[in-house]
Amino acid sequence: MEHQVDLAEYLFTRLAQLGLGSVHGVPGDYNLHALDYIQPAGLQWVGNANELNAGYAADGYARIKGIGALITSYGVGELSAINAVACAYAEMVPVVHIVGTPPLAAQKVNACLHHSLGNGNLRVFADMYKSVTVAQANLNDPSKATRSIDATLRECLLQSRPVYIELPIDMVQTKVSRPSAALDFSIPSLNGINAPNEDRVVNMIFNSIQNAQRFMVLVDGFTDRFQVSEEVNELVKITKCPTLTTPFGKSIVKEDLPNFHGIYFGSAGEPKHHSWVQSCDLAIRFGPLEAEVNTFGFTAKPPSDATITFHKFAVSYTENGEEVYQPVDIKSVLERLLRKMKEATLPTFDSFPPNNGHPRALLKALPAPDEADVVDQYTFWLHMSRFFRPGDIILTETGTSSSGGQSFVLPNNTTLINSSIWLSIGYTLAASQGASLAQREMIKDGSRPDGRVILFEGDGSFQMTAQAISDIIRNRLDIVVFVLNNNGYTIERLIHGYDAGYNDIQQWRHLDAPRFFGAREDDPSYPVRTLRAINWGEMAAVLREEDVVRGKGLVMVEVMMDMSDAPESLKKIIADVQRRNAGNRTVVEVEAH
Amino acid sequence: MEHQVDLAEYLFTRLAQLGLGSVHGVPGDYNLHALDYIQPAGLQWVGNANELNAGYAADGYARIKGIGALITSYGVGELSAINAVACAYAEMVPVVHIVGTPPLAAQKVNACLHHSLGNGNLRVFADMYKSVTVAQANLNDPSKATRSIDATLRECLLQSRPVYIELPIDMVQTKVSRPSAALDFSIPSLNGINAPNEDRVVNMIFNSIQNAQRFMVLVDGFTDRFQVSEEVNELVKITKCPTLTTPFGKSIVKEDLPNFHGIYFGSAGEPKHHSWVQSCDLAIRFGPLEAEVNTFGFTAKPPSDATITFHKFAVSYTENGEEVYQPVDIKSVLERLLRKMKEATLPTFDSFPPNNGHPRALLKALPAPDEADVVDQYTFWLHMSRFFRPGDIILTETGTSSSGGQSFVLPNNTTLINSSIWLSIGYTLAASQGASLAQREMIKDGSRPDGRVILFEGDGSFQMTAQAISDIIRNRLDIVVFVLNNNGYTIERLIHGYDAGYNDIQQWRHLDAPRFFGAREDDPSYPVRTLRAINWGEMAAVLREEDVVRGKGLVMVEVMMDMSDAPESLKKIIADVQRRNAGNRTVVEVEAH
Repeated sequence: MEHQVDLAEYLFTRLAQLGLGSVHGVPGDYNLHALDYIQPAGLQWVGNANELNAGYAADGYARIKGIGALITSYGVGELSAINAVACAYAEMVPVVHIVGTPPLAAQKVNACLHHSLGNGNLRVFADMYKSVTVAQANLNDPSKATRSIDATLRECLLQSRPVYIELPIDMVQTKVSRPSAALDFSIPSLNGINAPNEDRVVNMIFNSIQNAQRFMVLVDGFTDRFQVSEEVNELVKITKCPTLTTPFGKSIVKEDLPNFHGIYFGSAGEPKHHSWVQSCDLAIRFGPLEAEVNTFGFTAKPPSDATITFHKFAVSYTENGEEVYQPVDIKSVLERLLRKMKEATLPTFDSFPPNNGHPRALLKALPAPDEADVVDQYTFWLHMSRFFRPGDIILTETGTSSSGGQSFVLPNNTTLINSSIWLSIGYTLAASQGASLAQREMIKDGSRPDGRVILFEGDGSFQMTAQAISDIIRNRLDIVVFVLNNNGYTIERLIHGYDAGYNDIQQWRHLDAPRFFGAREDDPSYPVRTLRAINWGEMAAVLREEDVVRGKGLVMVEVMMDMSDAPESLKKIIADVQRRNAGNRTVVEVEAH
Repeated sequence: MEHQVDLAEYLFTRLAQLGLGSVHGVPGDYNLHALDYIQPAGLQWVGNANELNAGYAADGYARIKGIGALITSYGVGELSAINAVACAYAEMVPVVHIVGTPPLAAQKVNACLHHSLGNGNLRVFADMYKSVTVAQANLNDPSKATRSIDATLRECLLQSRPVYIELPIDMVQTKVSRPSAALDFSIPSLNGINAPNEDRVVNMIFNSIQNAQRFMVLVDGFTDRFQVSEEVNELVKITKCPTLTTPFGKSIVKEDLPNFHGIYFGSAGEPKHHSWVQSCDLAIRFGPLEAEVNTFGFTAKPPSDATITFHKFAVSYTENGEEVYQPVDIKSVLERLLRKMKEATLPTFDSFPPNNGHPRALLKALPAPDEADVVDQYTFWLHMSRFFRPGDIILTETGTSSSGGQSFVLPNNTTLINSSIWLSIGYTLAASQGASLAQREMIKDGSRPDGRVILFEGDGSFQMTAQAISDIIRNRLDIVVFVLNNNGYTIERLIHGYDAGYNDIQQWRHLDAPRFFGAREDDPSYPVRTLRAINWGEMAAVLREEDVVRGKGLVMVEVMMDMSDAPESLKKIIADVQRRNAGNRTVVEVEAH
């Protein structure tokens, strides 16, 4: 019997084996017994104030650590988290959602239980979750439970998307075999993943590069999820070809490379840049997210017949006028390609047109602001670049912040987290809690360099998930939060109803947050600072403050900004959204799926 | 063309015709244009801090006013609200959920849009909503849109459950016919709803009552949704038969009636009461909610072969050993039955055994607490009864509050709102915002007496939806909030893991909430008071405070209570939940559906 463990122990032990250090979530009567197994498995319980925040935080944690988990109660708890899990699905984040479900006897007879709809259908919520998770396990059978767990966790990591595990309360203590040492994460033997195909793809790419004259690389955000960021950086370094990223892909490419030219804005950017890209005879696109907001209305894409695209388990390209979708192990392809290129002489490619809009150029040209100047959306985002250090994790909330963040000049080894298709406001505050926790664990075990977590969020978004501040304090996490107070939903004002009451919000006293959420006032081991800046003089002073520079404990900075001010790129996106929402297909063609 | 209106105008005009006064929700780019039509239709925009709160508030509003509505954005917004809409479904609350969806052209080609999963399936969220709404309309066809709206709203009110309306952004201004004067809400001609059946049912019930010796009435919460509360009270008054309610049904029966005997606790109550009910030869049960928490483990139900049950559009009973489910217009049945009974001489029925556990008796026997006494869960709930006045709306959050509220002695014409199957903690704070808004509108138009809104909520639940306080302040609503600070999730401590860290919460400074959420400090037209009571002396002083007694503006009272203390009935429910969660079917048989 010493090879036997309780089912919940098996589950949490597996999660620990996969690198999980903490479990997010909210207790509820159907999951309490399972929670007993978290600490003994070497995991930390986060204890979020609500489930939506738990979900977002597990997502933020997973974007840093490669896996995240939350546990909620049946029905009420899981539905409150479903928006967050949908976000993880849309943006490819490996999150394990464990739901404590009612006892099997009651489930079998479709009993009228609390947290159910009362109509006898107890499968409703699991059915909903099928649309936002790539694998589901209902641990209702002792003989299959451990295999179900293993298969589900495997899908979570392989597909880099959320999975859903139901743990009935009376299965928690079911005896199962102790987990074996490690899970098998070899790539599934999809049709066509084989050596000859890989040879063909490696040679095709190598030859294409050898024969290219105008060659570019476009790095998108899923590149990171495919775990090939290092190889891509190596490729960019070796080929010296002009390289751009999408908004979602920003921070993956080392920005100090001379051939890095910033974000590709498509038709929303400089016409000379757009036409240069459109005239490329070769483009390699890594990990694309096709969303209109990430591609500036489906325009920021290289010409399709000249593009080689790296997907999760495939490379696609055009050959003799036909699109080829070739299943391969992309990491292996890239490794072989890099070896081959290092042994060869590569051609010199066309250079990218001068880019005065490159954040580095803009920052260099930016005069020091006058102390009395208001903090405006143009200078703010550029200047903030000087605040960043290698190792920092920077989060920009949907809206002015994510657009503004496109102007950052990022030091190497910083990580930028933004949402680039789901765009659920409120996401980043809770996600920053998870990211900070993951960072702390990784600094401790040496797998990440020292660094801070820095969040930029508007006042409207802050209201959605404000109690994440409580979770941050409870877990004594280090975060610098810049709350940009521009008196309401500026992004929506610009889209429609500039003066309409529905774009107003209740004005909060943001800097009272730490006190309200229970921060201790004189705890030297967890400092809490609140600061406000109404002009550049104050802002500069804030950025010189030692606590802000160190980024230890909780630092909240409220930055007062003008209601009508917005970053340039946001205004351009908005113009596109307005056209699109008006149903005007002639301006920018919508992309068929 | 003067008979033409924009589609959004049609929709909001219809809602105003149905008695809606305010629209809850959060703006988002896909719904902004629709929001322009709210004020012109004579409706108020609430502007919630987040969507979950908007959903709960629309539910609380609808429980008072008979209809509620929220509008959210596609994907992100609607998923954040789905837990609240599921609550409304489970507890039969007529809520209209309007979702602003992407333009039709983009939908038609399954474009990769923001707020979508990026996989081309734009129907995912509407599909999820099918499980928690009784009707859905996608207003994508100008020739059918108005009929879809009318049919959907009709189902909302007839079935007293939520509905879902998709309004594509480019359909907002589509021209349609001006709405006709009124919607048809006649009961659907279901099979069997006809005069002969009604005759049969009326006579059957009348004769059963005439022949009964031990006759009782059990009033459950859906009675209110069926809009027959007045008729049921009349029946209780005329027959003088022993009458009890469920936890969910409390406040529907006038509690000063001498034949009202409190809540039927089933096997969790006094054995003599349980056996008395079980030996009834006739019971009429109104609007039952079968949930285990509302029926004390499926035991608080009269003997099935002696029970006549009133459903939404049917009466069921046992005849010759077989269950009969007779479709009828129950309001008409009750009206005819009451007329018949008023003309007849009714028998005298067995009286209910002495009930020393009746809140009235307990309150009478309760000595005045000593000033230094801690505020305990036994005396607190009883004493609060003296604070209530006719017209008050009282909300008790799931947990100690809803259990404690079972001991209230309610003045006539008070309304108690609790959750009795969905039990999503955090619900009542946001629901109280909606209830207060509905009350204000109804006091103004004379359809409700003057009264206060009084909320009882624990500290754990408060954290879930705290930003509802912001919505309360923004809309200048009158609410007295009692935050019961017992240092975490006491209900869950009692179920499992009494000392476990997962049942702790971050301790907030609750009384800082109004300041943090932006209440003005010296606004005579909207007073804000915060008070704390750590013993009965302070509690008594609080309850004498003029601002608290008046209940105008926002009053927050933090009541310090012992972590281990809980109302007796909660402890009994917990014992049942523990047995059930252990999968032990022998103690209380789970109910098949």
